[in-house]
Amino acid sequence: MKTDSQLLGAIEAGGNKFICAVGTGPHDVRDRVCIPTTTPKETLVKVIDFFQSRHRKAPLVAMGIGSFGPLDLQRDSPTYGYITSTPKPGWDDTDVLGPIRDAINVPIAFDTDVNASALGEHRSGVGVGLHSLVYVTVGTGIGGGAILDGHPIHGATHPEMGHIRIPHDRASDSFAGNCPYHGDCFEGLASGPAIEARWGRRAESLPEHHPAWALEAEYLAVAMANIAVTLSPQRIILGGGVMKQRQLFPMIRRRLVEALNGYAVTQDSINEFIVPPAREDDSGIAGAFALAQDILDSKQEAT
Amino acid sequence: MKTDSQLLGAIEAGGNKFICAVGTGPHDVRDRVCIPTTTPKETLVKVIDFFQSRHRKAPLVAMGIGSFGPLDLQRDSPTYGYITSTPKPGWDDTDVLGPIRDAINVPIAFDTDVNASALGEHRSGVGVGLHSLVYVTVGTGIGGGAILDGHPIHGATHPEMGHIRIPHDRASDSFAGNCPYHGDCFEGLASGPAIEARWGRRAESLPEHHPAWALEAEYLAVAMANIAVTLSPQRIILGGGVMKQRQLFPMIRRRLVEALNGYAVTQDSINEFIVPPAREDDSGIAGAFALAQDILDSKQEAT
Repeated sequence: MKTDSQLLGAIEAGGNKFICAVGTGPHDVRDRVCIPTTTPKETLVKVIDFFQSRHRKAPLVAMGIGSFGPLDLQRDSPTYGYITSTPKPGWDDTDVLGPIRDAINVPIAFDTDVNASALGEHRSGVGVGLHSLVYVTVGTGIGGGAILDGHPIHGATHPEMGHIRIPHDRASDSFAGNCPYHGDCFEGLASGPAIEARWGRRAESLPEHHPAWALEAEYLAVAMANIAVTLSPQRIILGGGVMKQRQLFPMIRRRLVEALNGYAVTQDSINEFIVPPAREDDSGIAGAFALAQDILDSKQEAT
Repeated sequence: MKTDSQLLGAIEAGGNKFICAVGTGPHDVRDRVCIPTTTPKETLVKVIDFFQSRHRKAPLVAMGIGSFGPLDLQRDSPTYGYITSTPKPGWDDTDVLGPIRDAINVPIAFDTDVNASALGEHRSGVGVGLHSLVYVTVGTGIGGGAILDGHPIHGATHPEMGHIRIPHDRASDSFAGNCPYHGDCFEGLASGPAIEARWGRRAESLPEHHPAWALEAEYLAVAMANIAVTLSPQRIILGGGVMKQRQLFPMIRRRLVEALNGYAVTQDSINEFIVPPAREDDSGIAGAFALAQDILDSKQEAT
């Protein structure tokens, strides 16, 4: 176990709750709270209070934040660390990083919630030992993060994999899709709220053999096929509320092998290709710890 | 200009022809031949003859190969450097790298043709100064390469972006798609041979305002939307024979902005987001030179 001089702060900033933790890493969490996501001001005051009181008792050396988005991740941008144009009411153009950095003056790494989850699984979950993987969350929304050569990818901003377009046969599924931006994109067809809107019942209340799940598996398989041939990951981890329906996994695997027909993955390796997260609901906070550790290591290398 | 002691070999290995060049880089090509792609043995003998005779006169210090695929790019694999399961007759399971390495004993970098093209544009084309870009070729087939953080991406194998699934409205386009593996995937709907099969005429013979191009632009826009939100590149370069139809560019840009509806790129930046290659048909060979330079630099750093 590390000493208190290496205490890290970790935040998983979600649309429903902010999970805040202090420890030397995901296997040694000393303190943890869950703060409901209300207004930005109210939420961030509580987050800062938690870390400030811990920081006074035993100083943190670095922090990592995995946040819902979209985010501005360009370090030279005047709005670096902001949530930008989110559908989440009240959170448009919110500076998340700034107030935390002003209050806790340590190096802070900032990334998407899904890149953090991908990193969490890469460091201490089902992605250990791999150089490339994708983490896709299927819940209130759909998002994807990716690790290539051991690092989260960003590009111009960050991936928004929930918004890819996939075939949608309106003859067999007349639901128009509920993405406010794109209608029947992947998220508009396959998120938890899309399932609820299509079938008139909350997804978790649908029985295991309801036709909803075969349709859901179809959309997930085609979307995973697109991600597989675009990024060529060694593994895709499917997490989030909808994926707690474990019956989806064999259905997605079967349909994905069919859809790819020899490309990217075969029957022999499909069970290791599409997997649930090892850390279940803790991938994100584990990743936030990994982000904190990485920024600490990079600062120490630089000095 | 560099001295002869830094002469590099470059190969763009295509399904129709192998372009072989010797020089200190793409701006200083000393010798170049174009060898038709016939059988693997006949083709590779001619390629090796060309480089051996140049190598005897003035030794090469490194080589780069950008090849059609699919390829085995896993360095620890017994079939590293092979073309694996290609639809190109006679080229299944062909060792491309091995015979060349046996004949010309210098460090040789091996990558996909499209990663080479992406790298070529990154180093000396429309990608100079960017950290992330995608190069998509639309011709006999469709393929994509990507640069992230300045380096080509590989993952488990390499991307096969031509095989993503996109919406296909059979009411307005009854053509079933001609991909032998996936039917109506992106390549099956939008490659040169798909256009020819759908309209009964070679793509290049269709007039500028033929409805073929509006449909082609639709498929290209949706596919580029998927690539944009999956990889978040700063720029997408569209090359290959079909993209010589320059009227496609404004049509794709208009439809892509509409389809993304605020995500990844906006009206303000679309003209710089979707662009033709600067090097036209020479992106690949420029990239092969860049691959050669990179492997030379990495060997020199290591010593």
